[in-house]
Amino acid sequence: MGRVVVEVMPKPEILDPQGKAVAAALPRLGFHGFTGVRQGKRFELEVDGAVTPEVLEQVRQAAATLLSNPVIEDVVSVVEAGAQEAQA
Amino acid sequence: MGRVVVEVMPKPEILDPQGKAVAAALPRLGFHGFTGVRQGKRFELEVDGAVTPEVLEQVRQAAATLLSNPVIEDVVSVVEAGAQEAQA
Repeated sequence: MGRVVVEVMPKPEILDPQGKAVAAALPRLGFHGFTGVRQGKRFELEVDGAVTPEVLEQVRQAAATLLSNPVIEDVVSVVEAGAQEAQA
Repeated sequence: MGRVVVEVMPKPEILDPQGKAVAAALPRLGFHGFTGVRQGKRFELEVDGAVTPEVLEQVRQAAATLLSNPVIEDVVSVVEAGAQEAQA
């Protein structure tokens, strides 16, 4: 049973109200020195079997079509859980 | 300007309706071989300066109190962007 992690973030030019809310709350709670926060999504997909290059390619397609909205979001990474970071 | 990435996932025993919805949609879109999906959150915090151990400790505290709900979520990792994975 493998696992693939997909990370999706709002595009830099897109307003991110959730991130803005977090950024505004940080100093109120005593956390200073942060100039901005962006909030995105993290998915863990359980694979029925090993994580082969074909499975990763399937996940990349799913990430681009189902897990992210390409108009407003970027797929930041698609990697096997526990593997080194690799670009999507 | 450093950046710290915080990853938060629903605890394994917590129902995750968003993940369930994604898992149900995958085969409808032609993606087969996946047995489950969990959906969590990914934050990028921009730091005014370098990411020192003190900054990471601040982010860990913020992750445990503001960025996650410890009743239903786990902080999976708190790492400097681009750094090797390290456990929270």
